[in-house]
Amino acid sequence: MNPVRVTRAEELSHSECLELLQYQSYVGRLGFTVDGRPLVLPVNYLAGESSLVFCTAPGSVLSSAVGRPVAFEVDGVRSLYRSGWSVLVQGVAEAVTDPTEMEELRRGPLKSWAAPGPQLWVRVSIGEISGRRLPGG
Amino acid sequence: MNPVRVTRAEELSHSECLELLQYQSYVGRLGFTVDGRPLVLPVNYLAGESSLVFCTAPGSVLSSAVGRPVAFEVDGVRSLYRSGWSVLVQGVAEAVTDPTEMEELRRGPLKSWAAPGPQLWVRVSIGEISGRRLPGG
Repeated sequence: MNPVRVTRAEELSHSECLELLQYQSYVGRLGFTVDGRPLVLPVNYLAGESSLVFCTAPGSVLSSAVGRPVAFEVDGVRSLYRSGWSVLVQGVAEAVTDPTEMEELRRGPLKSWAAPGPQLWVRVSIGEISGRRLPGG
Repeated sequence: MNPVRVTRAEELSHSECLELLQYQSYVGRLGFTVDGRPLVLPVNYLAGESSLVFCTAPGSVLSSAVGRPVAFEVDGVRSLYRSGWSVLVQGVAEAVTDPTEMEELRRGPLKSWAAPGPQLWVRVSIGEISGRRLPGG
């Protein structure tokens, strides 16, 4: 990374990033690449300490992230003050296949907003997490 | 694309997508891949009919999108109704180098929230644009 300070953004700590990801947001944007073309799609999610999960339908565009390296971004923006924060997770998306885990997820609070039918649960490992805050000014 | 209907989302028309991109949002998320690893970062922007521009600092992480295929996503979410919309642009990011165009951009309303110093203007061609709306319910 360039050592020159080119931004007034402040780096967030690991625990601040996890706090924002787990408790301060419920919709994130999943980024991945299919046939060399990047995609970014919004999805509601639940996050733990080491991974996050979302729910989609088999055959959906989101489902094509399974097995790929992904980015997952959440943010909060206060336009009036040109301030805000963002957190970026980099990891790998994998389908949840363990029957016990799937049953727990089905009983949990997370529902797909878009897919009312058959469900595919996808887990994204939190390989790396980083974040920035832009103070108002 | 899978012909099976797996979502209750409605596809938006080209003109609806452009309207939302140009007038209903001011912060989007840029997705691109560096060394095989996807990144998604938020940025404020201005959009026209065939491209959008954002401003960053030379040497920033955002600046590494220049010359790459990118995705640019904007959305609006109404969590209470589990509804919202999203628009996805796929194109290529290029640095603005024409002196006249740079001067016009410098005089315009778009300012980087994060980078107060030297500016790099980046234009993303709107190669493809698509969008979806989730009606409340």
